[in-house]
Amino acid sequence: MATKQGLKIAVIGGGSSYTPELVEGFILHYNELPVRELWLVDIDSGLHKLNIVGNLAKRMVEKSGLPIEVHLTTDRRQAIAGADFVSTQMRVGMLAARGRDESIPLKYGVIGQETTGPGGMMKALRTIPVLLDVCKDIEELAPDAWLLNFTNPAGMVTEAIIKYSNVKSIGLCNAPIGLIKQASAKYQVAPDRVYAEFVGLNHLHWITRIDVEGEDKLDEMLADTAGYSAKNVPACEWNPEFLQSLRALPSYYLKYFYMTDEMLKEQLDSHNKGINRAEVVKRVEEELFELYSDVDLQDKPKQLEQRGGAFYSEAAVNLMRSLYNGTNDIQTLNVANNGILDFLPDNASIEVNCVVTKNGPLPLPLTKIPPSAVGLIHAVKTYEQLAIDAAVTGDRGLAIQAMAHHPLVPSVGIAIKMLDEMLEANKEYLPRFFTPESV
Amino acid sequence: MATKQGLKIAVIGGGSSYTPELVEGFILHYNELPVRELWLVDIDSGLHKLNIVGNLAKRMVEKSGLPIEVHLTTDRRQAIAGADFVSTQMRVGMLAARGRDESIPLKYGVIGQETTGPGGMMKALRTIPVLLDVCKDIEELAPDAWLLNFTNPAGMVTEAIIKYSNVKSIGLCNAPIGLIKQASAKYQVAPDRVYAEFVGLNHLHWITRIDVEGEDKLDEMLADTAGYSAKNVPACEWNPEFLQSLRALPSYYLKYFYMTDEMLKEQLDSHNKGINRAEVVKRVEEELFELYSDVDLQDKPKQLEQRGGAFYSEAAVNLMRSLYNGTNDIQTLNVANNGILDFLPDNASIEVNCVVTKNGPLPLPLTKIPPSAVGLIHAVKTYEQLAIDAAVTGDRGLAIQAMAHHPLVPSVGIAIKMLDEMLEANKEYLPRFFTPESV
Amino acid sequence: MATKQGLKIAVIGGGSSYTPELVEGFILHYNELPVRELWLVDIDSGLHKLNIVGNLAKRMVEKSGLPIEVHLTTDRRQAIAGADFVSTQMRVGMLAARGRDESIPLKYGVIGQETTGPGGMMKALRTIPVLLDVCKDIEELAPDAWLLNFTNPAGMVTEAIIKYSNVKSIGLCNAPIGLIKQASAKYQVAPDRVYAEFVGLNHLHWITRIDVEGEDKLDEMLADTAGYSAKNVPACEWNPEFLQSLRALPSYYLKYFYMTDEMLKEQLDSHNKGINRAEVVKRVEEELFELYSDVDLQDKPKQLEQRGGAFYSEAAVNLMRSLYNGTNDIQTLNVANNGILDFLPDNASIEVNCVVTKNGPLPLPLTKIPPSAVGLIHAVKTYEQLAIDAAVTGDRGLAIQAMAHHPLVPSVGIAIKMLDEMLEANKEYLPRFFTPESV
Amino acid sequence: MATKQGLKIAVIGGGSSYTPELVEGFILHYNELPVRELWLVDIDSGLHKLNIVGNLAKRMVEKSGLPIEVHLTTDRRQAIAGADFVSTQMRVGMLAARGRDESIPLKYGVIGQETTGPGGMMKALRTIPVLLDVCKDIEELAPDAWLLNFTNPAGMVTEAIIKYSNVKSIGLCNAPIGLIKQASAKYQVAPDRVYAEFVGLNHLHWITRIDVEGEDKLDEMLADTAGYSAKNVPACEWNPEFLQSLRALPSYYLKYFYMTDEMLKEQLDSHNKGINRAEVVKRVEEELFELYSDVDLQDKPKQLEQRGGAFYSEAAVNLMRSLYNGTNDIQTLNVANNGILDFLPDNASIEVNCVVTKNGPLPLPLTKIPPSAVGLIHAVKTYEQLAIDAAVTGDRGLAIQAMAHHPLVPSVGIAIKMLDEMLEANKEYLPRFFTPESV
Repeated sequence: MATKQGLKIAVIGGGSSYTPELVEGFILHYNELPVRELWLVDIDSGLHKLNIVGNLAKRMVEKSGLPIEVHLTTDRRQAIAGADFVSTQMRVGMLAARGRDESIPLKYGVIGQETTGPGGMMKALRTIPVLLDVCKDIEELAPDAWLLNFTNPAGMVTEAIIKYSNVKSIGLCNAPIGLIKQASAKYQVAPDRVYAEFVGLNHLHWITRIDVEGEDKLDEMLADTAGYSAKNVPACEWNPEFLQSLRALPSYYLKYFYMTDEMLKEQLDSHNKGINRAEVVKRVEEELFELYSDVDLQDKPKQLEQRGGAFYSEAAVNLMRSLYNGTNDIQTLNVANNGILDFLPDNASIEVNCVVTKNGPLPLPLTKIPPSAVGLIHAVKTYEQLAIDAAVTGDRGLAIQAMAHHPLVPSVGIAIKMLDEMLEANKEYLPRFFTPESV
Repeated sequence: MATKQGLKIAVIGGGSSYTPELVEGFILHYNELPVRELWLVDIDSGLHKLNIVGNLAKRMVEKSGLPIEVHLTTDRRQAIAGADFVSTQMRVGMLAARGRDESIPLKYGVIGQETTGPGGMMKALRTIPVLLDVCKDIEELAPDAWLLNFTNPAGMVTEAIIKYSNVKSIGLCNAPIGLIKQASAKYQVAPDRVYAEFVGLNHLHWITRIDVEGEDKLDEMLADTAGYSAKNVPACEWNPEFLQSLRALPSYYLKYFYMTDEMLKEQLDSHNKGINRAEVVKRVEEELFELYSDVDLQDKPKQLEQRGGAFYSEAAVNLMRSLYNGTNDIQTLNVANNGILDFLPDNASIEVNCVVTKNGPLPLPLTKIPPSAVGLIHAVKTYEQLAIDAAVTGDRGLAIQAMAHHPLVPSVGIAIKMLDEMLEANKEYLPRFFTPESV
Repeated sequence: MATKQGLKIAVIGGGSSYTPELVEGFILHYNELPVRELWLVDIDSGLHKLNIVGNLAKRMVEKSGLPIEVHLTTDRRQAIAGADFVSTQMRVGMLAARGRDESIPLKYGVIGQETTGPGGMMKALRTIPVLLDVCKDIEELAPDAWLLNFTNPAGMVTEAIIKYSNVKSIGLCNAPIGLIKQASAKYQVAPDRVYAEFVGLNHLHWITRIDVEGEDKLDEMLADTAGYSAKNVPACEWNPEFLQSLRALPSYYLKYFYMTDEMLKEQLDSHNKGINRAEVVKRVEEELFELYSDVDLQDKPKQLEQRGGAFYSEAAVNLMRSLYNGTNDIQTLNVANNGILDFLPDNASIEVNCVVTKNGPLPLPLTKIPPSAVGLIHAVKTYEQLAIDAAVTGDRGLAIQAMAHHPLVPSVGIAIKMLDEMLEANKEYLPRFFTPESV
Repeated sequence: MATKQGLKIAVIGGGSSYTPELVEGFILHYNELPVRELWLVDIDSGLHKLNIVGNLAKRMVEKSGLPIEVHLTTDRRQAIAGADFVSTQMRVGMLAARGRDESIPLKYGVIGQETTGPGGMMKALRTIPVLLDVCKDIEELAPDAWLLNFTNPAGMVTEAIIKYSNVKSIGLCNAPIGLIKQASAKYQVAPDRVYAEFVGLNHLHWITRIDVEGEDKLDEMLADTAGYSAKNVPACEWNPEFLQSLRALPSYYLKYFYMTDEMLKEQLDSHNKGINRAEVVKRVEEELFELYSDVDLQDKPKQLEQRGGAFYSEAAVNLMRSLYNGTNDIQTLNVANNGILDFLPDNASIEVNCVVTKNGPLPLPLTKIPPSAVGLIHAVKTYEQLAIDAAVTGDRGLAIQAMAHHPLVPSVGIAIKMLDEMLEANKEYLPRFFTPESV
């Protein structure tokens, strides 16, 4: 990278409503991350949105006065060729598929969620082959590029890339940075004075240490979990006696596992009232694109922060800056395990604190692993491994095994029935499962 | 052992209805296992049964003409002193406690089972401290003795002994020998021409290879699972597509995990009809003891084979013979993991094929581990580790963690409510949970 | 194997003077190991010896009256096609190369030995490519065959096959069976009443337990090491205080490492007197072949037992019988580590007790590992890994690393000079090191 | 630490000639490391030197105007009580013992060196018990203190503390920082623009990556090793072909292993010329103390930099600053392995890059491990483990095993003779080896 004049960045899924945040990040941090070319790329059916958000990006850059070129394209290969960083933020099947992921399981009395459970599995089956295609382009056209993957289920996608490609890839989630921000707000200190240790997988982590200016605040945080949640997860309350004996703060996604009954009830209530998280998001997005279309708008609109994926772009820009400058700072990332959790294979993806060196992230050894968490981590990882291999092969037997072994799925019988319905509903996006041979 | 004239054997829980089988085994195999003294020991409240079954034992020995002394006693220390083998087959709280283990969970919509789930956990909490007391006696009075543990949950009891005592201990179950017998019958060959490889934990194993005279019959056995069951597990049918893609034969206990909904329905149906497995067993036992009381009876009555625990004594006598003679034959036992399942700690108990040497069993490396099984094994082991430590310490927080992390328990909320009711119902047998300090 | 009428066996290097022992074994154990075809195969330059020893083999079989066909051939592929077992006993470069392996290092003040040190390394460089060629034939023509490898350095050859072929291979040495025989003679018991536990690598093992009829005799054996040696290793005496604190009996090959100075002195003395082990062996062989040529000879001549490689054939026939019948007995073999020595990679070859099942040997976990031995095992394994990769690639850099890191080589400077001379002396047998590119 | 007004620091062996460097460091970095009390402690026989160097320290502080109290004492417990940091820099037996460590092995044709080989072993036997006594005081009087250990052999001392005490301890060496300085000078960049990865043990490491401003300069450094040496290691030249195929830069201490013959020759030449490194150091020290005695001296004299232990104090102050402030920067330290080198036990000390957090150093995973180095690392670690246990127990058998298994010791026979002479020569400092029972 050193010899070029500035960096080339390709954003796959560049028509996303999140893009203005990313652009704002590039503008703010231009000094440490000199972007020369920003390529926003999307598929044909996303061209309309790409143009709207891309033109906003151009107006933002113009206002900044910085020498960043913004390119809009549907030619993925052109965008990737020679890139220094590729980021992905895609949604195969769009919000309609998400709606099905969330609603079909409910019919079977099972949690319907976009990144875990049967819904997350379907998202993985649809998404992993597409991402591996992107990786083939990167291997060919930008073999030294870093792939920053925000596409969910980010942990599984990252593991698929580790196993089935040679691309240097890192998975990213906004949950860890969100926890840091929350503690920073609570204790009125700068975020860099908060150090939290994360153990587990993407959307399945436990926080075992929260140091604020060097003092351990875990017990205080366990006693006050009200603020630690996310837009897309209902707000059931943790049992204090449970948290105290767990001695770790679970990710809010763990409510699906620890409070399955209440979470399911809430999902069914919402569903019966006709509320549909995918629909809500769809409407928010439509409103955002209406704003973005305003040719006088030259900044990221505030409303974007309500969108749910706060800090995603901050996480992305932070990571690119650290990789580019070799800052050796600590970030929480999804990377290959390589012995950090000694009960998982080296090529399993985990979510863990890493030192970000010029040569990539080095995961830090864990100082505490909650004994209670180990089995659940391994049970979910087993499902993930099976589902990844199912996605790559289109093997129905592997898909049955994955579904039947997900801890949220109550029996083999339900697993198979639900799988059949969900495969059928996703037929369009799962060619590997519906080739003549496999039927 | 070599210098003594014959062996001393102590049977803790000697008043059990199984004892005649054991005595029959000692008589049949006297040549390879020369028993000099057989000590049947029980607690005061079991004295009546001990006398009935003990006198039958004496009549059986007398008929055989062998120089075996049979001693009946409630003095455990006298029985253990200088023993070569100690075997345990006890039921702390007796069948009444089992009845509660099986029925209370049903109120919460949870599987009620004597060795797994909330019921198995209660059994572990009651039993482990008693077994560790037996171990203290063995450490003091018979430090070279082998402890053969049949007391359920046998895997957890064995692990507790590994972790908290120095006694040389082996856990035993009749399920593996049962599978061998079934294949032997199906293929009309001698049992020693069947070789099966077991992977997993006690009551949670998968069979990955069934060689009959050197030919792999796994696929055939997967296609015909009808015969592979047990008296105490209802006979739901396996889904053939699931078995085929699993590529391993699951223990019938795994139906509680793989067919939770059907198994629960069956349990609730039985319960609503007033059927109660503990009651059924109680009645069978009463009938057996009536038979045993017949002073003309000099043999093990055939009815004992209906009792459900078939092959237990065969397993015990086989193991003692192999240890005594150093036969280096292969048996399926519960022993310390020591790296066999590389994702579990060395001191976890596992159920695995072992070569039985004069110096104890050496576990054999596994040739296949079903990828689907790994997560569930680890999830149940995590529960077991937490429950063992709860049993030893009486720590309520550990008990909450154990219950909440059992894969059959649907949520933290239910876990805590159910635990509270079950602890209270077992108060008499759980002094460590009800000391003044811990309340 | 089950469907055929008897077994096909191919012996690569069938013109060896050892062959009559092997033939005697097949005759003695025909009932348990029904050999239908025995193919003795050798290279063109060995045809003369092949014919002599092959005709003796035919006479021996004829005398036995058994329906074994003996084939003599230089067509390796024909011999291997459809074989059930392939055994190898070859010497690339013959005794002349061995002479150079043993003498060149002495010029540099370094131990000259045929299986370890610089000499063993040269033997590995010459032999491994040839064995891997044999493996390619087996992969193609007899993919289900077991390869029993006696070719030294047997541990390194076995590891090369594990890493660079798919052939099912087992390495064999006569040292373990020799130790058993020695203890059996000393204590006047049958060999199967002796159980010894071996830890380490081929020609680099320690014995940590010697049970004679179940009683541990290690201390007695440590106090009386006189009998434990071999024809090809000079008889320096162990220091008793050292053995006692080591708490394990080292292989006699370990004298090269533990008594380097004395062993070197003895080698130099012999060398200066004109004594040359390779020459001695050559003369013994010539005498043997003279005997074999006697057309009246119909039995293995007694003189063969003086040859040095006693028990090799016994070891081979034992192993074939156990594999064929699935006897599950315990033998000491060279197999893939797979976690037995947890500090070595899974694909390292180790010498370890195994249960020999129908599906191959399963290594037994070690009950004791001498703490002192660990570093030396790893140092020699590191050399072996480097030398194997050098043999396969012909990479001079790897050869330098291997030589320089062998514990018997005193410095990098000597390593490189000695390597240069030895490579040159072996030029004819090392085409990979002398291609135009690599010069 | 947060609640106190400034830090208390205890320097065990405070009378060392290095102390002025440490004091200079505290003065320069007072802002980030506010030292309130500096306790220099020494034994009675070192009181004269302690007073000289302590009074210089007082004058240096006075000149700085900072509110640091300097205390001189022989009461170790008073110095340690309540300390935040304890550092040790001691030499049990003083330079006379070092002289014997270096000269006795030469009689046996073995390298005589103060930190490795027989000499280093003797130093370990003398030093470890004393350090463990210091640790007992820290456990009692300053349980939260960090122990920074500079006392050689620093790796073995650190491992002894890990195994036999509960003190939070870190071992430090000046070699890593020296390499950074050398690269920084060579490439004319600030030291923090150089990133080097170290693999191995104290005084036995390999450098596998040297990034200068993000560019890998390893190959250049391998080609130009002239500058990379130390005062106490003779300057034999590396073989370039060896370094190139090793693909790592070895520590200059590795010359004792890789160029044993040349290094030994050089040692014998010096010895025969009457040159004695211990004597040279002794004279340098006398000159330094003469300078220190000058009551007008208020600064660290330049001559100290010639002393050989350059950067020791810089390393110490850097580490204290990072621990105190939780800077999360990367330093090369001796810490518990905990899985970083997966072939060594978790409690082995290794020398590795660590992120220094407020809660202590977290070792970073290694990105490359030179395959050639693995065996030698393990061989030396095996010696270290045996020698540590010998030091703690005074067990002669363990000492024989340690000596005989050191890669620099040529045979068991020499090991025992040399050990006997060296134990006798160190009798005064090895009470555990000369109690009535052990004689």
